[in-house]
Amino acid sequence: MATFGVTLLSGGLDSTTVTAYARERSDHLTALTFRYGQRHSKEVICAEQVAGLMGVEHKIIDISFLGEVAWYSALTNPQAFSMPKDANAKQIGASIPITYVPLRNTTFLALSAALLESEALHAIEVKGLAREELQAVLYIASNAIDYSGYPDCRPEFFEQIERTLAYGSKLCAEYGVHIRVETPIIRMSKAEIVKMGVRLNAPLEYTWSCYEGGEVPCGACDSCVLRARGFEEAGVPDPLLVRLGQA
Amino acid sequence: MATFGVTLLSGGLDSTTVTAYARERSDHLTALTFRYGQRHSKEVICAEQVAGLMGVEHKIIDISFLGEVAWYSALTNPQAFSMPKDANAKQIGASIPITYVPLRNTTFLALSAALLESEALHAIEVKGLAREELQAVLYIASNAIDYSGYPDCRPEFFEQIERTLAYGSKLCAEYGVHIRVETPIIRMSKAEIVKMGVRLNAPLEYTWSCYEGGEVPCGACDSCVLRARGFEEAGVPDPLLVRLGQA
Repeated sequence: MATFGVTLLSGGLDSTTVTAYARERSDHLTALTFRYGQRHSKEVICAEQVAGLMGVEHKIIDISFLGEVAWYSALTNPQAFSMPKDANAKQIGASIPITYVPLRNTTFLALSAALLESEALHAIEVKGLAREELQAVLYIASNAIDYSGYPDCRPEFFEQIERTLAYGSKLCAEYGVHIRVETPIIRMSKAEIVKMGVRLNAPLEYTWSCYEGGEVPCGACDSCVLRARGFEEAGVPDPLLVRLGQA
Repeated sequence: MATFGVTLLSGGLDSTTVTAYARERSDHLTALTFRYGQRHSKEVICAEQVAGLMGVEHKIIDISFLGEVAWYSALTNPQAFSMPKDANAKQIGASIPITYVPLRNTTFLALSAALLESEALHAIEVKGLAREELQAVLYIASNAIDYSGYPDCRPEFFEQIERTLAYGSKLCAEYGVHIRVETPIIRMSKAEIVKMGVRLNAPLEYTWSCYEGGEVPCGACDSCVLRARGFEEAGVPDPLLVRLGQA
């Protein structure tokens, strides 16, 4: 059995842990990083570093046009919304934060699946791999606990997009191979993710979570606070802070 | 009731007819053209012209990176496959043509839906439109007769992606507004599409169907032949050929 995988890698703690998980389960794994309206490119540099350290093939795709279509978001259009200090800031009356990017995970998974399908079709049609011998899996580090407001981080969403990928792909229509969408950390706490990353030897010391793009994490933003609490509850010092002499 | 629409416009006969159809049913309509691995930019110029003639807002989005992910296709990677003269050319044993672009319609619809959702959320959250007063519709000129090989042109596919857009969007999760996906010509013959375009006063004389990007259509490629047959069966001279003095 040959397992083809594509994993979404932002360079943060969660997606690096999921990439380490995917590496253990794949014969051919590609990590995919989308560059778009992020405020700093630190994350992309970290993604490149951690992929290299894990020996995983890495592709960076520039989709900075995303803000032209998914423009109603504080993440793609910070000048119109002013990025909230509190990442869970909401419009009055709304329960989903204004950092929600319209259909982001749908777009990310469609593009990741296009890469995965290309590799799988090539293996079947050019290399002659039997379709019964092939598995195709997408990995995404969504978490329904930390970001429960986002509709496209819910298990129901992932079940549904799996069906869309089945109906919309040649890989399934012609060869009967389903693209599975795996969300290994969807119900985990930050502490559980930390423990999993440590167990899998993920290079957590090169991951970046801070909203700011400085030399060292600010320690004050939502994401830094969440990360610090995760390491504390896991009873592990943050290897990034150790590496930077900040522990 | 305010109806927001986004229509996919390639500049060909089918999508121009669907855009004319969408214009009649929308209060706010945007036509979206994706520029990617096309062999000529003639289509994009035609899309701009027909949108202007119909008075429809037009956005061109460059997604030329598409070939980096959806690389296993004669359309995004012509040097590897050599573009077949017969557009329905297949790999030995396969029933879906090698011009199939992995997950293209899934990607196109995700991006179109991101634009549509942005406009709808803005109307609700900023302009104060009541959600009960809002409809959101995507229009796509897929046809299950001419291109029956493509899995992502089947009605079942569009039903599935409609559900994915419901689960994955704030517009539905927060406000209960479903994004509808309409495929008005999905079961029509080319002659029926021609008649519909004529009836709706679509500027068919500026549409481009030919695979080549010349001054006048080649008249010999699959697409030219299909178009000529459609006009013949509809009993209408092709207004493009009339305009170019080729009729």
